[in-house]
Amino acid sequence: MSETTPSSSGASTETPLFLRAASGENTSRAPIWLMRQAGRYLPEYRALKEKYTFWELCRTPELAAEVTFQPLRRFAFDAAILFSDIMTPLSAMGTEIEFAPGPIIQHPVRSANDVAALRIPDAEEIAPFVPKIIKLLRSELKVPLIGFGGAPLTLATYLVEGKGSKDYPLFRQFLRAEPEAAHQLLEKLTQTTIRYLTTQIEAGAQAIQLFDSWAGLHNEDMYQTFGVPYIQRILEALAPYKVPRIYIAVGAGHLYPLMGQFPVEVISADWRIPLDRVRPLVGDKTLQGNLDPAILLATPEVVKAEAEKVLRAGLGGPHIFNLGHGIFPQAKIENVATLVETVHNFERSQSA
Amino acid sequence: MSETTPSSSGASTETPLFLRAASGENTSRAPIWLMRQAGRYLPEYRALKEKYTFWELCRTPELAAEVTFQPLRRFAFDAAILFSDIMTPLSAMGTEIEFAPGPIIQHPVRSANDVAALRIPDAEEIAPFVPKIIKLLRSELKVPLIGFGGAPLTLATYLVEGKGSKDYPLFRQFLRAEPEAAHQLLEKLTQTTIRYLTTQIEAGAQAIQLFDSWAGLHNEDMYQTFGVPYIQRILEALAPYKVPRIYIAVGAGHLYPLMGQFPVEVISADWRIPLDRVRPLVGDKTLQGNLDPAILLATPEVVKAEAEKVLRAGLGGPHIFNLGHGIFPQAKIENVATLVETVHNFERSQSA
Repeated sequence: MSETTPSSSGASTETPLFLRAASGENTSRAPIWLMRQAGRYLPEYRALKEKYTFWELCRTPELAAEVTFQPLRRFAFDAAILFSDIMTPLSAMGTEIEFAPGPIIQHPVRSANDVAALRIPDAEEIAPFVPKIIKLLRSELKVPLIGFGGAPLTLATYLVEGKGSKDYPLFRQFLRAEPEAAHQLLEKLTQTTIRYLTTQIEAGAQAIQLFDSWAGLHNEDMYQTFGVPYIQRILEALAPYKVPRIYIAVGAGHLYPLMGQFPVEVISADWRIPLDRVRPLVGDKTLQGNLDPAILLATPEVVKAEAEKVLRAGLGGPHIFNLGHGIFPQAKIENVATLVETVHNFERSQSA
Repeated sequence: MSETTPSSSGASTETPLFLRAASGENTSRAPIWLMRQAGRYLPEYRALKEKYTFWELCRTPELAAEVTFQPLRRFAFDAAILFSDIMTPLSAMGTEIEFAPGPIIQHPVRSANDVAALRIPDAEEIAPFVPKIIKLLRSELKVPLIGFGGAPLTLATYLVEGKGSKDYPLFRQFLRAEPEAAHQLLEKLTQTTIRYLTTQIEAGAQAIQLFDSWAGLHNEDMYQTFGVPYIQRILEALAPYKVPRIYIAVGAGHLYPLMGQFPVEVISADWRIPLDRVRPLVGDKTLQGNLDPAILLATPEVVKAEAEKVLRAGLGGPHIFNLGHGIFPQAKIENVATLVETVHNFERSQSA
C-alpha cells in the first residue's frame, strides 16, 4: 500500500511524485501526506501507546520506524514523515520535557542565566536515535521520507512559557522585557537545529519541514526581529544538501509576504486562507495544505467536497495536498480513505 | 482623575471624546481605554480578589462597580467598561461555569440533546445584577460606560470545548459533524445575547463591545456560515438604540473584509496587523487598538515608541487607542501611566 502512484503524464517517474512537487514541478496530480499521519487516530498507534510512553516510542528506533510505517499500510500516502516531536533535540541542550500530552518544560527558561545554562550539543549527541530511525526507514520505505525540526521562535515559545497556551503571554513578555536574552536563546536553538537537521539529511531524510507553529502570535516587526534571521540561517545551512525545504507557520496569514522571501521550496498553509489567495503572497513556491483537519470528523461526502475545493484552489501552481495542521485523534479512518482517494482521482493536468 | 480631557479643537465638547471617536469623528486626539483595565495588574484589584471569588466580584453590584472604578482613579482613561465576563449571561441558560482562572464548563455541550436542554432566559432573568451595576456606575462616572457581551460563535466555542484551548479541536469538529445542532446552539445564544445587551443599554451602557475572541479559528466559509448571520442579527437588534457598536475578533486578519460589511461603528484590531493596513480592509469605520499587550512589560521608552507607532498608523481616520487584547496581569503600572500620557500628548489634528 505504500508505493508511489505513477504520474498519469508518464513523465519523470523515477523521481517520486512528492519530491517533484516539492521541487517546484506542477505535477498532474497532487501528492498527499498528512501532518501527524502516524498518530492517535490509528487504533494500531493507540495499541502501541498503551504499552509505551511517547518518549519511548520516539527514542526506540524499531518502535519509531514501526509507528512511521503504520499509516502507509492503510493509505497510499505519497510521503512518510519521521515519527518524532519538535522538542526532541532540546533534551540534549539540558532541558527536561514531559508530554501530558502537550510538552511540559520542567524548568522553563525565564532569564539570561537560564539561557546561559543551555548547551549547544554536538551533532551526534543531539538525538542519536534519530539517524538510526531514518536509516531503518530508508531501507524499507517506497515513498520519500520527510525529516523535520521546530523553528527557533517556536521552540523558544515552549521553553519560556513552559507549556502549551492559547496566546503565550509569558513568552511574548520575555521578548519585550529581555530582548538580549531572547536573541541568545534563539541563537543557541538555531545552531542546535542546524546540526540536528543536517544530521537527518545525512542519515537519509529526503525533505525537511521546519515547523514554526507559533510564529503567527507576532506582528511583522517582531517576526522580522526574532523569527526571520534565524529561519533564514537554518534554511541557508540546508541549501547545499539540495533537499526540498518546507516551512509551516499556523495562524500566520499576516506574515505570508515575509515568508515569500525565504530560501524555501514549499510554504505550507493552514486552513484559514484558500490556496489561491495564499499563492500570490508567497511568490513562486510550491504550496502545501490546506484542508481544515476538523473536516475529517464530518461525513465522507463533506470530505470529498471540501478536499476538491482545496484541490481547485491549488491549481495555480505546484501543490502538495495536506491538512492545514495535524490530524485530530478523533479523525475517522474512512474519511482519511475518502480523502486519499479524492486527491488521487483529481486530475490537475488540464490546467497544469 | 477620571474626567474627560477636552478636545483641543474646542468643538462639540459636550459629547465625550470616546463617544465622538466611536461615532466616526476623526478626533484631534485619540481616546484611550484598555481591555481588562480593571484587573489583576492593579494591586487594589488583587486585594479584592483575595477576599472574593471572581463570580462574587461580578455578581455583587457594589463590588463590580468598585472594580470598574479602580483603574479610573489611577489613569485618565476616556471610557470605563463594565466589570464582568462574556460567560456571565450563560448561567441563566442552565450552564454552570467556574473560573480557574479561564472558564471551565461543568457539562460541555456536545450533542443536539445538550443544546435542547439550554433555555433562552427572559431579559430580566439573564443577569439581574448587571443593570444594577450599570446604574450605580452611571450615577458616578465622568466618562462613558461601555457594556459588552460575547459573540455567539465565541460563546459556543467555550460551551462545546468546555475550557480554554489553543485551537479548540472539539468545537471545530462539532461544527463539522453536527452543523444543525451548532446552528440551534448559535440561535439560542443569539437570542439570549440580544436580550442581555439591550438590557445593558436600557440600564445606561453608552456603547457596546461584542467580543468574538475565537472567530479567527475559522476560514471565511465557516465564519460566513456560523459567525456572520448571528453577529449581523445582534448588531441590527442594537441599531435602534443609537449607541456605538464595537466588534473585536482576535487573530482574524483574514476575516477583516467580511467584518467590513457589519453594521458596526468600530472594528477593534488585535496587535498582528498595523492599523494603516487594517483600515482599507474594513471600510469607513472607526478603528480601535492595536498595541501588543506584551509591550507593557518592557521599559517606558519602548512603551512610548511603540504607542506612537500605533498612533501614527491610526491617523488615516477615527481611532480609539487600546491594546490588541486584554492587559496582562504582569503589566507594569508605570508603563500604563506612560501609555496614557503618550496617547494624551499625541496631536492627531495636523492630519485629521
